Amino acid sequence: MTLEGKQLIGAQAVAAEGALIHAVNPSTNERLDPGYAAGSKAEVERACDLAWTAFDQYRETGLEERASFLEAIADEIEAIGEPLIERAMAESGLPQARIQGERGRTCGQLRLFAGVVRAGEWLDVRIDPALPERQPMPRVDLRQRHVALGPVAVFGASNFPLAFSVAGGDTASALAAGCPVVVKAHSAHPGTSELVGRAIQRAVEKCELPEGVFSLLYGSGREVGQGLVTDSRIKAVGFTGSRSGGTALVQAAQSRPEPIPVYAEMSSINPVFLLPAALQSRAAELGEAFVASLNLGAGQFCTNPGLVIAEKGEGLNNFLAAAGEAVQGAASHTMLTPGIHDAYNKGVDALVSNDKAREIARGPAGDGDNQCQAGLFAASAADFLSDESLQAEVFGATSLVIECADQDEVKRVAEHLEGQLTATLQMDDADAEAARALLPVLERRAGRVMANGWPTGVEVCHAMVHGGPYPATSDSRTTSVGSAAIYRFLRPVCYQNLPEALLPEALKDSNPAGVSRLVDGKREA
Amino acid sequence: MTLEGKQLIGAQAVAAEGALIHAVNPSTNERLDPGYAAGSKAEVERACDLAWTAFDQYRETGLEERASFLEAIADEIEAIGEPLIERAMAESGLPQARIQGERGRTCGQLRLFAGVVRAGEWLDVRIDPALPERQPMPRVDLRQRHVALGPVAVFGASNFPLAFSVAGGDTASALAAGCPVVVKAHSAHPGTSELVGRAIQRAVEKCELPEGVFSLLYGSGREVGQGLVTDSRIKAVGFTGSRSGGTALVQAAQSRPEPIPVYAEMSSINPVFLLPAALQSRAAELGEAFVASLNLGAGQFCTNPGLVIAEKGEGLNNFLAAAGEAVQGAASHTMLTPGIHDAYNKGVDALVSNDKAREIARGPAGDGDNQCQAGLFAASAADFLSDESLQAEVFGATSLVIECADQDEVKRVAEHLEGQLTATLQMDDADAEAARALLPVLERRAGRVMANGWPTGVEVCHAMVHGGPYPATSDSRTTSVGSAAIYRFLRPVCYQNLPEALLPEALKDSNPAGVSRLVDGKREA
Repeated sequence: MTLEGKQLIGAQAVAAEGALIHAVNPSTNERLDPGYAAGSKAEVERACDLAWTAFDQYRETGLEERASFLEAIADEIEAIGEPLIERAMAESGLPQARIQGERGRTCGQLRLFAGVVRAGEWLDVRIDPALPERQPMPRVDLRQRHVALGPVAVFGASNFPLAFSVAGGDTASALAAGCPVVVKAHSAHPGTSELVGRAIQRAVEKCELPEGVFSLLYGSGREVGQGLVTDSRIKAVGFTGSRSGGTALVQAAQSRPEPIPVYAEMSSINPVFLLPAALQSRAAELGEAFVASLNLGAGQFCTNPGLVIAEKGEGLNNFLAAAGEAVQGAASHTMLTPGIHDAYNKGVDALVSNDKAREIARGPAGDGDNQCQAGLFAASAADFLSDESLQAEVFGATSLVIECADQDEVKRVAEHLEGQLTATLQMDDADAEAARALLPVLERRAGRVMANGWPTGVEVCHAMVHGGPYPATSDSRTTSVGSAAIYRFLRPVCYQNLPEALLPEALKDSNPAGVSRLVDGKREA
Repeated sequence: MTLEGKQLIGAQAVAAEGALIHAVNPSTNERLDPGYAAGSKAEVERACDLAWTAFDQYRETGLEERASFLEAIADEIEAIGEPLIERAMAESGLPQARIQGERGRTCGQLRLFAGVVRAGEWLDVRIDPALPERQPMPRVDLRQRHVALGPVAVFGASNFPLAFSVAGGDTASALAAGCPVVVKAHSAHPGTSELVGRAIQRAVEKCELPEGVFSLLYGSGREVGQGLVTDSRIKAVGFTGSRSGGTALVQAAQSRPEPIPVYAEMSSINPVFLLPAALQSRAAELGEAFVASLNLGAGQFCTNPGLVIAEKGEGLNNFLAAAGEAVQGAASHTMLTPGIHDAYNKGVDALVSNDKAREIARGPAGDGDNQCQAGLFAASAADFLSDESLQAEVFGATSLVIECADQDEVKRVAEHLEGQLTATLQMDDADAEAARALLPVLERRAGRVMANGWPTGVEVCHAMVHGGPYPATSDSRTTSVGSAAIYRFLRPVCYQNLPEALLPEALKDSNPAGVSRLVDGKREA
């Protein structure tokens, strides 16, 4: 499978003319071929034109047809075999087991959405039959379903070259909803992107869908990224990345003549609350388990535990001792890109030079390129409450422990937090009251609240919420992981007194696909 | 029931100190007492503080308790009796039957949401039980429900002093979702607002809810309106009004440190397509029925049919003749306010002075104050496609007929339309093919597509969509009428491995309220 370094626009591979984008192997700083010539307005225009042309046909594909397409993508990705694993490892510095797992997650996610499409709950069919005899006014026949928003622009993320990238959760849920997708590849893994993009191209062809259902562009955020978000044919955006990147896309989308929704998953420090009884009974164990979560994948997860909050005292001291020791022994992993490694070091330096943060431990520096040196710092609650910079996300394996006088101060720190993807309670039975006092705050602050686990590890399922109040995401009403992610790309349409022959299939009296419907407010399976 | 002219903040009636706001009876231009002293930052601050204080308790009220509260509001509104009808008539110029009907709609809507709250579908409960034996990794226990966004600011609309105002659809759906509400009264009907606001105050007291669940403020859009939207404790906004007003609120909400959703229902000209066979078989009947819809309530409905699109020819000529005659005989109704009457006349003048618009008929001028003189104009499709000003909403009983060469041009005009609340097809059986060709365009352009009815008349039910792509609304993913409106004020939260005792009631294994749940992706009634 030879990489060609071209834009994938519809069924074509197109040579663009911009500056060459090269991946870099972060463990060697070696440049990887081929170069990908950056696209420009012309490629954006062509991809959006094809996507728009494909939209009306693709959004009306039958449930079975669309589900089969998602499964075909998964099959085609698996069929690439080892070259995909090898290229993703080279472009990300991530170990083999992680990339293999991520491929499984990516394909499993596509198949989950295939099941969701078939079940048809996402159509949210509602039927209020006509009541011709009603007084004082008859009721007309009213039927609602959800329809696809339109072509969606998806931005590949740096930290999941497969699961949050070309065929990741945003693409899978948008395609499931009936939206054509134009992906802007992340410049850190262009080869992985090409391999996956060609797999989708093959699936489009095998399923005989209009070619514009999928395109993959390479280029700069300014030209290709902004070009996509401001194109009038793009109707929604999926993004996972930095707060500044996400905010820029939201602003561009809001400044359009027709503003569109942007689902940006941005930044989160994922607070972990160590409650008193848990700290008393198992401080050392917690410290070790915490550092295992913190250092996983060099801390490059959206759900990395970047903040720990607990009452001062012997329990917390024991936790800090155990965690500090674990940090000192924490293996240093290669980070995703030299740029991420630099940013990490700057974030750690800011903590080192902040008088209010006290260094607890640093991990081994590592002897390869771009390695992440783990770090653990501590600060008082009073300082945390008065210094917003202590809430800044340090993307990587560094965390800050906030020492509080009592549970009231713990709650004040919780109230002071920005919006988060997750909030974690480490608690024993005797902590139930303290947990109950914190829960309302955590529900307001986070999309996922957990007990006695660690935030890394995001299950792809129906109940997952990978989302949360701003700035964790730009839209707290949604999730970017799990089957509910499909709702991001849908809007309701009501059909009034339409002749049966013109009604969409799911709204016909005969309900040929057998989807769940709300009839006169009552659920019919 | 004496009106006091005060702000209703929590359980109190508070005298503010700003300039006096007086309603004006539009049929007499007479000033109505009392004056309402405009509020300022201080009143906004107090109302938001109370709302925030009430939030955690109110959002966790049980389904039955919250439903009973909504019903209590309806009961209290009905208990006001004739004084409410009389005041609303005086402040709006609307006839008695309309106001009585609107009261019925308002109370029916509150009771509909009571039923919705009890049924609990809005919680969208999803449970993925733990799979401790799963390979290669066990699955944790994951449960999702929806929670209220937070306190909501609601802006009363001018054209529905009851159904889209203090206890209208936005308030009812926000309260149903568990959100405290702070209403900014529309300055055109402050007395009606006070009567309804006091009814809600009484319901809050009778149901022993925290007082901050509801407040009602009077004042300017600049001070009180912007003050509410930019207050950090307000987490969503409901608005029905002009495009400029809605856009200003969206911008203010997006500029906050924590941006929040704004549900603004703004402008729509509600295109009506007269298909060839229908036009051939019943042009005169269509012309008369169209004008009845156009002139209903002086054309002051969001769904007023402001645009008609058809092929040129004998059928359309017959339609224009009949509609023109009906317009000439159309009763002139009093408009809601002198300001709306002035804006209407300016909109009509713009059509009169536009060379591309040809006057078909004008209605009688009327001999009272602020009366709406109906109007009908026509323009060619080519001119409509080239002159954006012909798409501007004229709020009132004036419509524009677009004459097309053929169905291809009809489709081009449809594609050229901005987002709409509704799109209507007048069609006979022989028009099925033409209708089928238009449907995909109309689904993309409108929230409600109907056949052989008129867009005025919005049923409050489960399948209704009163929404649509921008600029019909600021968020096409929602509806502001009907039970699905509750979803605007909710966000999902996932609970991972939480002890049963800490789980919210709807997520407990025992499912005490018996709400519908999605367990492992399968619907359980």
